[in-house]
Amino acid sequence: DFAKLDYHRGIRVGYPEVIYCEGKELEHLKKIVEDMLKQDKNILATRVSKEAYNAICEITDNLIYSEVARVCVINPKETKKVGLVAVVTGGTADIKVAEEAAITLETFGNNVDRIYDVGVAGIHRLFNNLDRIKRANVVIAVAGMEGALASVVAGLVDVPVIAVPTSVGYGANFNGLSALLTMLNSCAAGVSVVNIDNGFGAGYIASTINKRVAKGVE
Amino acid sequence: DFAKLDYHRGIRVGYPEVIYCEGKELEHLKKIVEDMLKQDKNILATRVSKEAYNAICEITDNLIYSEVARVCVINPKETKKVGLVAVVTGGTADIKVAEEAAITLETFGNNVDRIYDVGVAGIHRLFNNLDRIKRANVVIAVAGMEGALASVVAGLVDVPVIAVPTSVGYGANFNGLSALLTMLNSCAAGVSVVNIDNGFGAGYIASTINKRVAKGVE
Amino acid sequence: DFAKLDYHRGIRVGYPEVIYCEGKELEHLKKIVEDMLKQDKNILATRVSKEAYNAICEITDNLIYSEVARVCVINPKETKKVGLVAVVTGGTADIKVAEEAAITLETFGNNVDRIYDVGVAGIHRLFNNLDRIKRANVVIAVAGMEGALASVVAGLVDVPVIAVPTSVGYGANFNGLSALLTMLNSCAAGVSVVNIDNGFGAGYIASTINKRVAKGVE
Amino acid sequence: DFAKLDYHRGIRVGYPEVIYCEGKELEHLKKIVEDMLKQDKNILATRVSKEAYNAICEITDNLIYSEVARVCVINPKETKKVGLVAVVTGGTADIKVAEEAAITLETFGNNVDRIYDVGVAGIHRLFNNLDRIKRANVVIAVAGMEGALASVVAGLVDVPVIAVPTSVGYGANFNGLSALLTMLNSCAAGVSVVNIDNGFGAGYIASTINKRVAKGVE
Amino acid sequence: DFAKLDYHRGIRVGYPEVIYCEGKELEHLKKIVEDMLKQDKNILATRVSKEAYNAICEITDNLIYSEVARVCVINPKETKKVGLVAVVTGGTADIKVAEEAAITLETFGNNVDRIYDVGVAGIHRLFNNLDRIKRANVVIAVAGMEGALASVVAGLVDVPVIAVPTSVGYGANFNGLSALLTMLNSCAAGVSVVNIDNGFGAGYIASTINKRVAKGVE
Amino acid sequence: DFAKLDYHRGIRVGYPEVIYCEGKELEHLKKIVEDMLKQDKNILATRVSKEAYNAICEITDNLIYSEVARVCVINPKETKKVGLVAVVTGGTADIKVAEEAAITLETFGNNVDRIYDVGVAGIHRLFNNLDRIKRANVVIAVAGMEGALASVVAGLVDVPVIAVPTSVGYGANFNGLSALLTMLNSCAAGVSVVNIDNGFGAGYIASTINKRVAKGVE
Amino acid sequence: DFAKLDYHRGIRVGYPEVIYCEGKELEHLKKIVEDMLKQDKNILATRVSKEAYNAICEITDNLIYSEVARVCVINPKETKKVGLVAVVTGGTADIKVAEEAAITLETFGNNVDRIYDVGVAGIHRLFNNLDRIKRANVVIAVAGMEGALASVVAGLVDVPVIAVPTSVGYGANFNGLSALLTMLNSCAAGVSVVNIDNGFGAGYIASTINKRVAKGVE
Amino acid sequence: DFAKLDYHRGIRVGYPEVIYCEGKELEHLKKIVEDMLKQDKNILATRVSKEAYNAICEITDNLIYSEVARVCVINPKETKKVGLVAVVTGGTADIKVAEEAAITLETFGNNVDRIYDVGVAGIHRLFNNLDRIKRANVVIAVAGMEGALASVVAGLVDVPVIAVPTSVGYGANFNGLSALLTMLNSCAAGVSVVNIDNGFGAGYIASTINKRVAKGVE
Ligand SMILES: Nc1ncnc2c1ncn2[C@@H]1O[C@H](COP(=O)(O)O)[C@@H](O)[C@H]1O
Ligand SMILES: Nc1ncnc2c1ncn2[C@@H]1O[C@H](COP(=O)(O)O)[C@@H](O)[C@H]1O
Ligand SMILES: Nc1ncnc2c1ncn2[C@@H]1O[C@H](COP(=O)(O)O)[C@@H](O)[C@H]1O
Ligand SMILES: Nc1ncnc2c1ncn2[C@@H]1O[C@H](COP(=O)(O)O)[C@@H](O)[C@H]1O
Ligand SMILES: [Mg+2]
Ligand SMILES: [Mg+2]
Ligand SMILES: [Mg+2]
Ligand SMILES: [Mg+2]
Ligand SMILES: [Mg+2]
Ligand SMILES: [Mg+2]
Ligand SMILES: [Mg+2]
Ligand SMILES: [Mg+2]
Repeated sequence: DFAKLDYHRGIRVGYPEVIYCEGKELEHLKKIVEDMLKQDKNILATRVSKEAYNAICEITDNLIYSEVARVCVINPKETKKVGLVAVVTGGTADIKVAEEAAITLETFGNNVDRIYDVGVAGIHRLFNNLDRIKRANVVIAVAGMEGALASVVAGLVDVPVIAVPTSVGYGANFNGLSALLTMLNSCAAGVSVVNIDNGFGAGYIASTINKRVAKGVE
Repeated sequence: DFAKLDYHRGIRVGYPEVIYCEGKELEHLKKIVEDMLKQDKNILATRVSKEAYNAICEITDNLIYSEVARVCVINPKETKKVGLVAVVTGGTADIKVAEEAAITLETFGNNVDRIYDVGVAGIHRLFNNLDRIKRANVVIAVAGMEGALASVVAGLVDVPVIAVPTSVGYGANFNGLSALLTMLNSCAAGVSVVNIDNGFGAGYIASTINKRVAKGVE
Repeated sequence: DFAKLDYHRGIRVGYPEVIYCEGKELEHLKKIVEDMLKQDKNILATRVSKEAYNAICEITDNLIYSEVARVCVINPKETKKVGLVAVVTGGTADIKVAEEAAITLETFGNNVDRIYDVGVAGIHRLFNNLDRIKRANVVIAVAGMEGALASVVAGLVDVPVIAVPTSVGYGANFNGLSALLTMLNSCAAGVSVVNIDNGFGAGYIASTINKRVAKGVE
Repeated sequence: DFAKLDYHRGIRVGYPEVIYCEGKELEHLKKIVEDMLKQDKNILATRVSKEAYNAICEITDNLIYSEVARVCVINPKETKKVGLVAVVTGGTADIKVAEEAAITLETFGNNVDRIYDVGVAGIHRLFNNLDRIKRANVVIAVAGMEGALASVVAGLVDVPVIAVPTSVGYGANFNGLSALLTMLNSCAAGVSVVNIDNGFGAGYIASTINKRVAKGVE
Repeated sequence: DFAKLDYHRGIRVGYPEVIYCEGKELEHLKKIVEDMLKQDKNILATRVSKEAYNAICEITDNLIYSEVARVCVINPKETKKVGLVAVVTGGTADIKVAEEAAITLETFGNNVDRIYDVGVAGIHRLFNNLDRIKRANVVIAVAGMEGALASVVAGLVDVPVIAVPTSVGYGANFNGLSALLTMLNSCAAGVSVVNIDNGFGAGYIASTINKRVAKGVE
Repeated sequence: DFAKLDYHRGIRVGYPEVIYCEGKELEHLKKIVEDMLKQDKNILATRVSKEAYNAICEITDNLIYSEVARVCVINPKETKKVGLVAVVTGGTADIKVAEEAAITLETFGNNVDRIYDVGVAGIHRLFNNLDRIKRANVVIAVAGMEGALASVVAGLVDVPVIAVPTSVGYGANFNGLSALLTMLNSCAAGVSVVNIDNGFGAGYIASTINKRVAKGVE
Repeated sequence: DFAKLDYHRGIRVGYPEVIYCEGKELEHLKKIVEDMLKQDKNILATRVSKEAYNAICEITDNLIYSEVARVCVINPKETKKVGLVAVVTGGTADIKVAEEAAITLETFGNNVDRIYDVGVAGIHRLFNNLDRIKRANVVIAVAGMEGALASVVAGLVDVPVIAVPTSVGYGANFNGLSALLTMLNSCAAGVSVVNIDNGFGAGYIASTINKRVAKGVE
Repeated sequence: DFAKLDYHRGIRVGYPEVIYCEGKELEHLKKIVEDMLKQDKNILATRVSKEAYNAICEITDNLIYSEVARVCVINPKETKKVGLVAVVTGGTADIKVAEEAAITLETFGNNVDRIYDVGVAGIHRLFNNLDRIKRANVVIAVAGMEGALASVVAGLVDVPVIAVPTSVGYGANFNGLSALLTMLNSCAAGVSVVNIDNGFGAGYIASTINKRVAKGVE
């Protein structure tokens, strides 16, 4: 009774509740997974530590775990994938956040193009991949340190850019504050921002955009 | 020669360069407007103070000025409007930011539905207007003080929510920081955030989404 | 002699001194418990780590320990409970703070109604429980991430709301700063705020209110 | 249509909507007052600048204005006053915030005892007035600079203390941040805090407490 | 006697003392200029308001004033200019800071190439000017908002980049903090940073580098 | 050669160099102690972890270690003690910082009176000890959480108060920031402040004051 | 009755109450001065704006006003001056804060030596004046920008240094925060710090030290 | 394919890509080293933990590791060293950052003079070494705590000073923020700043300056 699962959400906002594992007692977590499994749907769990993963395995072994993204897809289903979302990163250390976004997108039925390590320190790498980026309905730009990638991309494409600041860096980076402020102050328009390291949130909103575009409502 | 106008942008990202007037010398501003008028396009200018407005009037009188939004549409054109974007605000003091977004959207060819003063202090006002909100392809949620509106809206709809924190409030509001952090930490997924008081930025990205949806590409 | 216990407090402010265990040397802690046990009263200890709990057990085994709330009631007494305080949380990860409040309230002689996991991401869960909330003399609203719960509740009830921001979240949450600022800037009146994760403080002040209401002084 | 007045609030939370004038266009303000006057109730307006006051006077002259508190009571009614709230301040510069609280309380039907300039720089002034303070159902403690008053009062009484940090001070006061943090970290329990300079908010919650105590519900 | 002019500095560090006018009483300022004029040197004064300029004019009319840079060169001398420093800006609103740097450089005997309004919103403008930038011994990169220009430039050239964050922007820009953090966290190496809006400081250190390079010591 | 010991300091400022152990490699530390021992003086080492203590023991066993204060007196000498410094704390968790101050004072030849756990939560404990406090030439006030102790003491005595904020607390305490700001904004005059948890610094400056008073120079 | 003057303070802490004028209504201020004049003492008023000065003149013309320090000595008396306090500043713009300290000291009966504009940009100016500084019982070090003066002075003398950070500077100075942090983190011991721009506070505590030294109590 | 190595950089900016090891998966790291070894160049890796070092050793044993600087030179080459850079530190705890700078400089072909532990607490140590410092083309000043060293050095020499704030210190040091702000606000001109603890960045830019000076281009 401690958790009030929101099954209505699937109808209301189009996606099932996602389990945010951080800070949850393992007993609580297992109970929630058990309850949700009663509905025959695929379930997404984020911020899944090794311990949380083991706890979930006690309930079911029908699941896929990405260690780098710390994401679990429980009771995975084949879903038709539509549209295209490009996920770009500044460096290789940003990949863990990018993968959280990419797996969220794929679980929710979106095609994903991963374009990693194209940050502004060597900007020709970005230009070499511009054609792929321009093919997408939405771009997710993941970057730490100074986070300049989002502005540069937004200045080059005409699709919405969802920027994800990461906590990669040190010192005056203040655990991602630097990249966050950079992205909020982008001199190029067309950028909006989610929380530091919030790959899931970026994937989620990109999915709502991409799928709506793919459906072509007016 | 001090300003390098980016005429190529219309082709590259689909919109002409927009003039951000704050901090520009009036002589510079007049020169820029003069140059841009050589191309027969409608021009958007934001953060237009009374003085800046008068300076622009010396160059042309073919313009519309919204005093509350501090926005100027120069050489305005009739544009076909597509899709629908809902602009909601928490209070009446947020209207000035909301109008910057709304006029940006209309100038770029989007239908807009304005739903103002429906903040969480009296949440039934939001529920009374939920049908209108759900009809939109994108929602822009504008709120100051604690900025809870964005989370509440995102928990109720399945379209992307672009959140605009405003500097409305005082004390521990820290000129909009409070609403900004609230929106970045939304417990409901589907929210991304632009800079404090950045109605233009919200309108711009909402336009890229709404028009793409309206076109229905895959 | 290092600690000057304030036995006069029971007379002055109506409650015995509460032992805040964090940062205290175990030897000091044991000495303090020993001294306080000389008075035949129930004693509340907060922020009790597993180690601190074991140290206290060396002095007495007449005690109840809540691991989730990290609270100890030493020498517990049956107390008549009066009035009603509702303790609501946004998510399941806020329960540990909520329990610190609830146990404080019960130890001080108040009836408590626990209503957990009703945050604004699925706001219908809150509406489903509004009747229970409205029955209370005081509401304690516990929430992390963006902390919007307090404003929404305060907009719906006519009793005082004590808001407790929690450190649940990550990134721009800045260890609870986000929820703290949200609650301080509540657009709905009737909210006052205690320190981040301070379940004890919320329970304490709610007790002073609820008991005074129950007594019905004018 | 820009403002959605919340007349239901009187029924829902027991008080009419209060007008926060800061940042409202004067035309909007006049329209709101006009609308609210259609219901024969007393109306409270806060943060009323000289200009806002003049604008309201164009609509009605049946009003009382406190220049120091920047508060307006429009269409004032004689209300029966119940219970007692003590409003204490650290210095004389905090009086403007204290008066906002006191007038709010009186308008909402509470007895108020004003005890000003009793800060900890000369703590005997506080002790000289302790009997008056102890008679109240709630204490509002208003202080700037280091804001120590709230902790000291809470250590001496057994009623709830609502603390109001003020922006009085300079330098490392950071516009009231110093007093705010002091009050949130009070070593004495029984303190909860409202926003910096938020006299109205303190008066409002103190009223909900005092009136409930006066009614003596259980 | 209130001011202890540091004439020795010309010998010690190679430049005369520069007068920082902000916050100085006009009488003090005039006295300092008078004293310095006794030595037949050119004098640089920065942060010269209109009032300060008029005060200096009472002492001498042998001076040049740049209103946009708020810089005064008193008793100007023809100096041989050596080497080359490129001063680039992101936007037109950054020009006032850039000019403070440029005039400092010219007064100290350096050739300057001004390349303004080439920010990352339209990055082709930067590429169009890359040859000019690469010819310099030092680049000064001046940018506000998100300040990404410095990282991008540093990724493209092999000369030292001195980055100057400006306070141009609003909201989460926090008066230049955003650009400052961006520049300190540059993912491209070869960037060092001066204070927000500190065109003078950037010019000064660039001069020490450029002149040393021009002299070619080992 | 990595460390340049400042033996001249004993002559210049009256005390030998004190070894700050935090962050020093153990090999460096041992080398420094060895060098200093060549001069037959007593040596003070602060922030001495258990590991650092063991390292020093390898060089000499003529030393006293306070585990709670993490301070080492190496080669201790009997010194004549003069004057009187009172060290007061708010709670028992502040004792570790207070002891760093007290041992520093005693090592430098000052009489110390320790008055612990007299914070404002139970202010009568302070009044009970006021006579002892008033006898001192300097008072060191050590407090965490809201740090109100310093203001209250300064309002009651006519001797200089050196305030030491501690990191005791949690949440909006921000590791001592709260107490630091409180002490800097003291409404009672006669307070000056050292760094958070800097018991050594407080003891050092109190010693310079107390010894000068004891000597009675004019 | 709004102000509770603390006449007892003269006996308790050795100095009469000082009037802090900022934020006080002029009518209140005049009333306070009138009341205090009934006792035949000299009165110090700080933060006295031109308007406040004129208001005081309506009550009495027996007063001295320092415009630069914004300090008023009302009913001034000849006092015997004892001991010596050195007041040093980094630059000429810090003089206004230094004068607030110096006048406070002289009014309270201390000899003062003013040594201005000796900051570390030209450190030989400090060495040239070291003998004068070393003669004092206390040094007050006033500096803005990076505030390094306090550390350098403390490394050179054996008397207590009271550091006053000033708000002189711009950008990452954050209105004096930079100098404040510098002074709190001084690597040289013997420094304690008062609030930004708090010349009065520095003068007050320096007076308590200097007079005690001059009296030579043990 | 996850990493896009920037081999072009050697040509474009004159140095090969440097491997920043923090946050990289060990498998990624090994793959990157393997790839880079295909080009017969010396490779620099920074922030190399013990684990990362072991991982690299699995690929090659032709490498030098500095444990104190956490830097690895892989496939080291004898390079001709030119010019001179002085690296000075305030204390011994800053040496780890200084060594990162020094090794970067040497790897890139610069002569280095290390002058450690000459901070302003004992400023004569700096004067004793001034001749060595003045011989350099660039000075790198590394300091924690209050970071005053950079200003003092810049006031004494006529070469560019690259300041590196370190996180050495505690409390109001805020992990290096204090030293960072100090250095950005230097009252002496000629200072520019890199990120907290960024020895690599300081070495890199110092190398671009020193080598250019050594080559003597105009
Ligand atoms: N990685 C994540 N970051 C932010 N929010 C998340 C994340 N994963 C899940 N969520 C949200 O957290 C909510 C669940 O919170 P709770 O009720 O505490 O379990 C879900 O509805 C998601 O929208
Ligand atoms: N969890 C808690 N959070 C804040 N304050 C507390 C907590 N538990 C106890 N206290 C307060 O801390 C005081 C004891 O502090 P001390 O003298 O250091 O033991 C008590 O009087 C309580 O009011
Ligand atoms: N410039 C100043 N800065 C800080 N505190 C001051 C200053 N001038 C006076 N004070 C203090 O302010 C108190 C008066 O405050 P109030 O009761 O508000 O008038 C005095 O007791 C002084 O200790
Ligand atoms: N210690 C360091 N601090 C800051 N930047 C570094 C450091 N070491 C290497 N770098 C930079 O980080 C870049 C590599 O980032 P990545 O692509 O994530 O491997 C290199 O081009 C270097 O310029
Ligand atoms: Mg890379
Ligand atoms: Mg409204
Ligand atoms: Mg939940
Ligand atoms: Mg007073
Ligand atoms: Mg431009
Ligand atoms: Mg205690
Ligand atoms: Mg000067
Ligand atoms: Mg040393």
